[in-house]
Amino acid sequence: MTSGAGTAAPGRALAHPDREQLALERVLHALADPVRLSVVGVLAETGEELPCSAFALPVSKSTCTHHFRVLREAGVIRQVYRGTAKLNALRRADLDARFPGLLDVVLTARRRADGT
Amino acid sequence: MTSGAGTAAPGRALAHPDREQLALERVLHALADPVRLSVVGVLAETGEELPCSAFALPVSKSTCTHHFRVLREAGVIRQVYRGTAKLNALRRADLDARFPGLLDVVLTARRRADGT
Repeated sequence: MTSGAGTAAPGRALAHPDREQLALERVLHALADPVRLSVVGVLAETGEELPCSAFALPVSKSTCTHHFRVLREAGVIRQVYRGTAKLNALRRADLDARFPGLLDVVLTARRRADGT
Repeated sequence: MTSGAGTAAPGRALAHPDREQLALERVLHALADPVRLSVVGVLAETGEELPCSAFALPVSKSTCTHHFRVLREAGVIRQVYRGTAKLNALRRADLDARFPGLLDVVLTARRRADGT
């Protein structure tokens, strides 16, 4: 699980499912929440690694942490430590490879529902 | 909610969200379960109205009832009484209109995951 060698913070690596382990039901569950869908939308639009604080979410810090963990454990995002910051990135390539079209369809449906 | 006039069983009509009321998060949640996904897969393949008993589900009758209710309340299926039978049909036209491509992408991903 942790190679550690040469990393800035060995032992702080977080668990992520491999691409082959991604389960459709878990990914759908992770996306089935307006806060998490909003996070995925921002990550998809920016294409960047972002800290939790970059998302203006209407929930407490602990709830926020929970939502990011659900996304990570389902394989929707990757969370990595860079120094003291924990950054979040969308696993678009993995999702597109395992569930072709799913992310785009969901993000498009979300934008339509928002009326944008 | 209930027009009743001319129906065989007035008052037994079940509540369904209108097409415009379908919410992406609720639909994703309804699909985020292997049993419910299996039901949706069978309904999509047959294109027919089927009673709960037509689905060989590895769960108790009450759990089965619960899953069909989740699907109905999210707007994924329509449940209607025909005499004493409660039949289930996929709301494909409504889903395709509100969330274009979503159902097909999910069903395709499910088939790939099953290795079929």
